[in-house]
Amino acid sequence: MGGQSLLLLRASRLKRIAGLTLAATLLGANPVLAEDYLVKDQGAYEDALKRLQPGDKLILADGVWRDFEIVFQAVGEEGAPILLTAQTPGKVIISGQSNLRIAGEHLEVSGLVFKNGYTPTSEVISFRVDSKTVANNSRITQVVIDNYNQPERQEVDFWVMMYGKNNRFDHNHIVGKRNKGVTMAVRLNTEASQENHHRIDHNYFGPRPILGSNGGETLRIGTSHYSLTDSYTVVENNYFDRADGELEIISNKSGKNTFRNNTFYKSRGTLTMRHGNDNLVEGNVFFGEDVDHTGGIRVINAGQVIRNNYMEGLKGTRFGGAFVVMNGVPNSPINRYHQVKDARITNNSLINSDNIQLAAGSDAERSAVPVDSEFSSNLIYHESGENVFTVYDDVSGITFSENVIAPMNPPDFAEGFRLEEIALERAGNGLLYPAKDIDAGAPRDLVVVTKEETGVSWYPKSEPIVEFESGRTIEVSPQQNALFEAVSEAEPGDTIVLQPGEYVVSKFLKINKPISIKGRGKVDITFERSALFEILDGGSLRLSRVNISGGKAPDNAGNAVIRTSPYSMLENYRLEIIDTHFTNMDVNHSFNIISAAKGTFADNILIKDSSVKDVTGAVLKLDKEIDDYGIYNAEYLTISNSTFENIQGALVDFYRGGTDESTFGPHFELKDSRLSNVGGGNRNKSKTSIHLHGVQVTEIYGNTIEDSEPFLINHTVGEPKTRIHDNAFINTPLPENNELNSGLKPTAEIENNKVKNR
Amino acid sequence: MGGQSLLLLRASRLKRIAGLTLAATLLGANPVLAEDYLVKDQGAYEDALKRLQPGDKLILADGVWRDFEIVFQAVGEEGAPILLTAQTPGKVIISGQSNLRIAGEHLEVSGLVFKNGYTPTSEVISFRVDSKTVANNSRITQVVIDNYNQPERQEVDFWVMMYGKNNRFDHNHIVGKRNKGVTMAVRLNTEASQENHHRIDHNYFGPRPILGSNGGETLRIGTSHYSLTDSYTVVENNYFDRADGELEIISNKSGKNTFRNNTFYKSRGTLTMRHGNDNLVEGNVFFGEDVDHTGGIRVINAGQVIRNNYMEGLKGTRFGGAFVVMNGVPNSPINRYHQVKDARITNNSLINSDNIQLAAGSDAERSAVPVDSEFSSNLIYHESGENVFTVYDDVSGITFSENVIAPMNPPDFAEGFRLEEIALERAGNGLLYPAKDIDAGAPRDLVVVTKEETGVSWYPKSEPIVEFESGRTIEVSPQQNALFEAVSEAEPGDTIVLQPGEYVVSKFLKINKPISIKGRGKVDITFERSALFEILDGGSLRLSRVNISGGKAPDNAGNAVIRTSPYSMLENYRLEIIDTHFTNMDVNHSFNIISAAKGTFADNILIKDSSVKDVTGAVLKLDKEIDDYGIYNAEYLTISNSTFENIQGALVDFYRGGTDESTFGPHFELKDSRLSNVGGGNRNKSKTSIHLHGVQVTEIYGNTIEDSEPFLINHTVGEPKTRIHDNAFINTPLPENNELNSGLKPTAEIENNKVKNR
Repeated sequence: MGGQSLLLLRASRLKRIAGLTLAATLLGANPVLAEDYLVKDQGAYEDALKRLQPGDKLILADGVWRDFEIVFQAVGEEGAPILLTAQTPGKVIISGQSNLRIAGEHLEVSGLVFKNGYTPTSEVISFRVDSKTVANNSRITQVVIDNYNQPERQEVDFWVMMYGKNNRFDHNHIVGKRNKGVTMAVRLNTEASQENHHRIDHNYFGPRPILGSNGGETLRIGTSHYSLTDSYTVVENNYFDRADGELEIISNKSGKNTFRNNTFYKSRGTLTMRHGNDNLVEGNVFFGEDVDHTGGIRVINAGQVIRNNYMEGLKGTRFGGAFVVMNGVPNSPINRYHQVKDARITNNSLINSDNIQLAAGSDAERSAVPVDSEFSSNLIYHESGENVFTVYDDVSGITFSENVIAPMNPPDFAEGFRLEEIALERAGNGLLYPAKDIDAGAPRDLVVVTKEETGVSWYPKSEPIVEFESGRTIEVSPQQNALFEAVSEAEPGDTIVLQPGEYVVSKFLKINKPISIKGRGKVDITFERSALFEILDGGSLRLSRVNISGGKAPDNAGNAVIRTSPYSMLENYRLEIIDTHFTNMDVNHSFNIISAAKGTFADNILIKDSSVKDVTGAVLKLDKEIDDYGIYNAEYLTISNSTFENIQGALVDFYRGGTDESTFGPHFELKDSRLSNVGGGNRNKSKTSIHLHGVQVTEIYGNTIEDSEPFLINHTVGEPKTRIHDNAFINTPLPENNELNSGLKPTAEIENNKVKNR
Repeated sequence: MGGQSLLLLRASRLKRIAGLTLAATLLGANPVLAEDYLVKDQGAYEDALKRLQPGDKLILADGVWRDFEIVFQAVGEEGAPILLTAQTPGKVIISGQSNLRIAGEHLEVSGLVFKNGYTPTSEVISFRVDSKTVANNSRITQVVIDNYNQPERQEVDFWVMMYGKNNRFDHNHIVGKRNKGVTMAVRLNTEASQENHHRIDHNYFGPRPILGSNGGETLRIGTSHYSLTDSYTVVENNYFDRADGELEIISNKSGKNTFRNNTFYKSRGTLTMRHGNDNLVEGNVFFGEDVDHTGGIRVINAGQVIRNNYMEGLKGTRFGGAFVVMNGVPNSPINRYHQVKDARITNNSLINSDNIQLAAGSDAERSAVPVDSEFSSNLIYHESGENVFTVYDDVSGITFSENVIAPMNPPDFAEGFRLEEIALERAGNGLLYPAKDIDAGAPRDLVVVTKEETGVSWYPKSEPIVEFESGRTIEVSPQQNALFEAVSEAEPGDTIVLQPGEYVVSKFLKINKPISIKGRGKVDITFERSALFEILDGGSLRLSRVNISGGKAPDNAGNAVIRTSPYSMLENYRLEIIDTHFTNMDVNHSFNIISAAKGTFADNILIKDSSVKDVTGAVLKLDKEIDDYGIYNAEYLTISNSTFENIQGALVDFYRGGTDESTFGPHFELKDSRLSNVGGGNRNKSKTSIHLHGVQVTEIYGNTIEDSEPFLINHTVGEPKTRIHDNAFINTPLPENNELNSGLKPTAEIENNKVKNR
């Protein structure tokens, strides 16, 4: 008996008893008299729950169920499960402080939508009621969890936790987890949950934005503690759509699992075989679409089989590359890196993907190179013709054979690669194959799971971002309150055009949607509160062609032109400053241009063709995550063609503490700009003009820096890439670079810079 | 025509015209036909405003007016003012994002209540509409502003700003300003507002709690910039009730003002003659009631007359003493300290008040001693018999004469003090006078303004604090969710008594009112979220006789047993931990016991008769105000008779940055406790077991510290008092003390400690 057929039950067939509506239906597969209970409130739910017999169905009435902690504990039978479902799929909204716990045997839940709230406990959906009472042989299908986030970005919770055995989680729609904590996990923490044979299939794992810290995995199977235990979980036919949370999209931490025929679309990070042995990864398809940090598969541990996978357009680097085989730690503790052994890596296609890393992570601790492994019949093609391999250690423990490579030369570290002249053609399944028949790479009959085949048909797979300047244009003239009102009334995507004149802004301009503000002609803005703009959750701002003076700001320390909400922001924001000019930020000390608060995260901050002059604070304060938990304030910070003059603080204070290696960023780029007298104020603690701590990728070039304090670049984690080149340092010391934890010598490339002292 | 009589107007006399209600009344003083407009919405208000003629009255209908930015601009005449008033005083509530600006001539506003909201601009009530349009000859009377605070504690605003000339602000009720910014100020920033002859009288300035940073003054007249301009403002017959915001209750910053017959009740801080000359301070009464930091009058600048004032039970020290005469800066810049010259300090009574400070603040910069001054006929009595004078420099520029002192010996720095045997008796006016007739001290006919004579009769002067254990008792047994539900349902002051057993808490216990939780018998608590307790705005917690283990907390960095709201808290909280025992806080790194968030402030944190063992973080993290704006997380932290063992972080990280001298605290006391293996974790940045930065008052005595990192005490501002004595340091270095900005040698008294190294 399928859940679907029961959903067709009509209300007219139900009869009402003591607050419940009861209906008798004759079950096909199990010819007993099963009952349907349609319940309209939590009390009725509790009553009905007590009566449930195998084959019965508990139906939640359409509507919004607020603050409903659903405990669905019952015992069904094989062929006669007990069902919890929606009167109409998608019309039963579980909101507020709600969650769902199931326990027992042969249960099935379907049709519910969790949104507009968050769980009061640490789990939204749990396959157990408490640590001793789990669900087995049960299924959750066609359930939606949509942005059902804790209000605090850094508060941990989990959306789906599978316990027990022989459970299935399928055709669910899971989108918009924005707070910390893996979206879904399989737990093996008691014997009742080991060797579980779960199946996770046909789910739509929709966009999960960059978290900006550890704890942003989409799916995890096991934990390091139980990673030598077998799970036998099958993960197949799922669609991962921009699952960008952190470096690991899937973190496998147990044995004998299968990852099959999943599609990864523009997803940053990799499918990581982090712990556990004897797993099978086959027939998966990765479309990177040339997006930064899109990765493929990372191999650690013994007995992993990686075959028939397809990777295209993956731009990931280092541990986030298209294909990574790690070094292990000799006699590794259970939570470090076990040696790669008996890996079978065959018939994979790596197309236009930038990085294949072998013996990656090799260092004093991770010295155990891969052994007894095979890398064969893979197809490696990169249109650039550049070598995609990086080999960090001895790879003689891997046997390379029958691999085909094009159009670049075979790598020199091993035999087993054959250069062929190849033209690629896109086949009916959407994948690229050599025009001629070549016996390497992914099979031609690979079936690619599409977005439409996953999740549910009745809930939209909508786009998460509204682009700037995609809406209406609103004209504003410089009357009192006019700009304030325009900002309040704008819709997402709208553009506010300011007519020439002087704007005195007496209230905070609160930006809670993506809007653009553009000057036309000479537009001068002053403001009377401690900030001109406050970016709230959901807000993004593009600001162009205006002049902003701080002369009317309060005579008080710590003003800012733009600041983020003091409350945690779940949505990542975008901030673009173009052709905009800032002056007179000096009514009191510590006046910053852009100041980020704790718990807020920018996908992107851009300053272009702009100028900043006379500032008592910093231009960018992105240093509020001081707890050293690996959290930071912005993913990309890009500054180009701009000038900064008389800045008492730093141009940027950018801080990413902690020593974990789980984030892509922060990234910082500064080019074609001029810094003059920056960083010399006596309140500037770091005594620098640019202070980067734990930034992962830094490019600074084509700039002139004069009469300024030096840059300070502290590398703390992973393998940060810092390049500082083709700049002129006039009366300014050269940058300083420290490696705080790695024990390495400074790795920043500081070269081709001119130094002049007057 | 007084505002009061108009308030008696009955609705039956009104007639209704086009959305307004219009009534004709014959004015007594000015026999023209004046009109009354009763308006019920903002549109009607706008319409009526346009019609107003001298003698007219605009009446706001009873009810709640939300988001009403009232602009009351009109021109009345002498004897025929234009009135804006309430249909019933106290029944017109201005809430949400509202404010009031008045401009014009002969206006009078009365009867309004501002509560449940905050101003969207930087002022709640302003005697101007914009920088060029002020109010003159106008009055605001019988208006209430009650906790009308910006949601962010550190966001600056001002409740009353007086501009223009000849204005009066009287009989208002002003209570509960909890965010940054002086409560009320007179501005002299344009000529139209100088020599203004304002009168501020009979106001009730109700409790303003300690702000924990600069910007908590209750009343300011002028600013340093215009401080050499005369204001001629009279401040009289006001009642300052626990006006505790910061070191200055009143900050006088202009010339020729009078402060007369005001009562200061249990108010921390002083009436400070900060800038400006020729001011008169007479007949004021200070009742300290032996409360910490209650002060009197601080004298700076020239021509100040301080006479006939009465101070009793003032405990303030240093700049916050009962009576302070400062040293000046030679040729002082306008914002520093002008020399005291021609001060006349006569006939003041200083009873049981601890500190009279002369030539205070003397240092390399402040070297100009008081000159041409007189200190005579004052009565100084302290029952302790201890010397209350501290003299920091040459005071030969002050002529001392006819002062009477008892029962201590006359001071030795000058003649002019006469010891008399005195018995004090409380007179009918509530003040203490010598039983025998003595010609010194405050006059016997001094009239003391009482609380009841100020503010309005129709609004309660209620107490701001609900005491612990002042409510019901709620018994709770260890069932699932029972403790959570008891906490949710408790009323302020209630006590939750836990019956013996194991409590597993799966949700945050959110404390948004003062409650107590007490164990009875053996009570063991574990918790599954990242914190057990979260103290929200309005919350306070007393926790006693329970055992708390962190063993079930999430495997995630940064857990805490008790943390404060991540959102700004306007209300200061209290936290008491008594006979409570913490173990197993080590599931992951950086697990703290108590962690304060930015924007939150404790009046008091107490740990007594308790123990803490096995913690990966700190016991107390009170270091989130890192911006160096002079903000901090707690006023008093007291630890006694407790043990701390295996703490990887510090016992306490306590941070008060900035270099201003405007706060009383932080205060830290640690006594009769044992620290064992504290501070040695590799994530403990400070490498200390106790890290105090900018703490003002520290007492550490009677403790044993073994196998621990050293204490680090950084003095940053003012003249912090640090005493560390009678402790045993075993295998632990002695404390380190740095003076970061003063240039002094270390001032901490570290003495009588035993040191033992095994």
